Amino acid sequence: MALPELYRKLNLLANADLTTAAVQDALRAVIEAALDEVAAAEMIPLISKVPGKVYGMASANGRKSRPINTALFAPDIAREQLFEAIFKTTPPFDAAVLDRCLYTAAMSFPVARDLFMEGDKKSPGTFFECLIGHIVAARYGVNPKRQILVPTLDEEVMIPTDFIYELGQNRRIHLPIKISTRERVVQVWAHQKLLDGMHGANRFKGVLVCLAETNKQKDVSVTEVCLPNQWRAYQMYIARLDRVYYLDLPVKYAALRDAYPHIQVWPFSKFFEEADNLFNMANAV
Amino acid sequence: MALPELYRKLNLLANADLTTAAVQDALRAVIEAALDEVAAAEMIPLISKVPGKVYGMASANGRKSRPINTALFAPDIAREQLFEAIFKTTPPFDAAVLDRCLYTAAMSFPVARDLFMEGDKKSPGTFFECLIGHIVAARYGVNPKRQILVPTLDEEVMIPTDFIYELGQNRRIHLPIKISTRERVVQVWAHQKLLDGMHGANRFKGVLVCLAETNKQKDVSVTEVCLPNQWRAYQMYIARLDRVYYLDLPVKYAALRDAYPHIQVWPFSKFFEEADNLFNMANAV
Repeated sequence: MALPELYRKLNLLANADLTTAAVQDALRAVIEAALDEVAAAEMIPLISKVPGKVYGMASANGRKSRPINTALFAPDIAREQLFEAIFKTTPPFDAAVLDRCLYTAAMSFPVARDLFMEGDKKSPGTFFECLIGHIVAARYGVNPKRQILVPTLDEEVMIPTDFIYELGQNRRIHLPIKISTRERVVQVWAHQKLLDGMHGANRFKGVLVCLAETNKQKDVSVTEVCLPNQWRAYQMYIARLDRVYYLDLPVKYAALRDAYPHIQVWPFSKFFEEADNLFNMANAV
Repeated sequence: MALPELYRKLNLLANADLTTAAVQDALRAVIEAALDEVAAAEMIPLISKVPGKVYGMASANGRKSRPINTALFAPDIAREQLFEAIFKTTPPFDAAVLDRCLYTAAMSFPVARDLFMEGDKKSPGTFFECLIGHIVAARYGVNPKRQILVPTLDEEVMIPTDFIYELGQNRRIHLPIKISTRERVVQVWAHQKLLDGMHGANRFKGVLVCLAETNKQKDVSVTEVCLPNQWRAYQMYIARLDRVYYLDLPVKYAALRDAYPHIQVWPFSKFFEEADNLFNMANAV
């Protein structure tokens, strides 16, 4: 099957149940086909305005891809090693290797789509949501919900949400998944506040997962768009996110850990280490 | 001057001070030039899937415009009557006439841009913000701020906001202005919650002004995208908006006034009637 069909198949399976082996197989098929296509493309260096990071872009077919963090992107990695890492890792593990595998898998389809597919602009976001949603669903053995009942006194109302994982009493996760956030990120804190308002503070752990915050300028240079002061204000005055994980973590957001209100922003590999501890209140910062 | 230049001039003046007569003159020039261009276009009927409303679109230059509510759009109205209405109206007034003038002025530049201008996709939103921002600024005689100081214990942080009008002690308005809202609307409640969190509930009146919620499908039909249950949940659990005004008010949102939490959604003409009463707590619903 070609990549667009593989993607549609993944999408159908993921909508049915994110925990299944069928979804994992469909993810493997999409990632593998996407990396095959990307491997044939030319890699062109970009001028990185992000200290300490090197970016390039893939080029093929008269098209150019989004920026790629070249230290994290490893399309030549043995496929079995890649899938073992992203789908089977348990502690202890080499975080640097896991981060490269996760980033490579996450970028595979978006980059391939930039170069080879027309149409649906939402597909990279949907793919990324399937990938992260499945990793978390498989880890906890729970298929997330995408809506929640609003408990009003006079009637019942369902409203759509990001992924909600219900693992049992007082073990619920609110998991928004975004390719990038920019100023739209306030939506994440707002939805967390909505859950807190309906059910009480800290009843749903707020866990945001993002791919990157890169911005390509004129096919020449790359910046990261970061709004750390807004994030601090949202964390202080709107709601509390428990964790933010990045596949390509901006240094300015990692630094948020070091000052009040100490937002816990980490590489996504850290989830594999602390998935069981997210509900351990002694670990709460 | 041609429309793009008139728009740029308006933008420069509005950034300096929204209260001025110079801004009002620049708005007149943009609206007049835009309506002249729109008058030359062909009006094509659309299939309205919105009960009780009739929509069309303008067509010229091989391009088609956004949907236009034909009962509200009056490009042939005498220009002096139009500008008298939108810039000089005081109670008592004929709300139906004022609503038509406001809608015509608000749609003038966006429709002209759809048909004749390339490039900057943000310009209709910026124009609408200048128009509404000026009307409110002129009404209260106050130029709004676009950032606010976050009062943290250890340092001072400025963050960008929607328009904030400071009219005096306990007389502050938080005024987001949007062409349409869709699911992004939660940002408005989030920013209101941020202000409430920093300064206390009800210290800033939250007043949202929107143009319309129309969505054109395949250049054939028009729907309104409304999420009334989400709005109710946001109003109950995130923060409280004091007013929402529309230039083309969706019936589903007007109905929010009739049930708890009774969100006050009105045609924008109502602002002209109640501008002085927004701070009268006896009127709070």
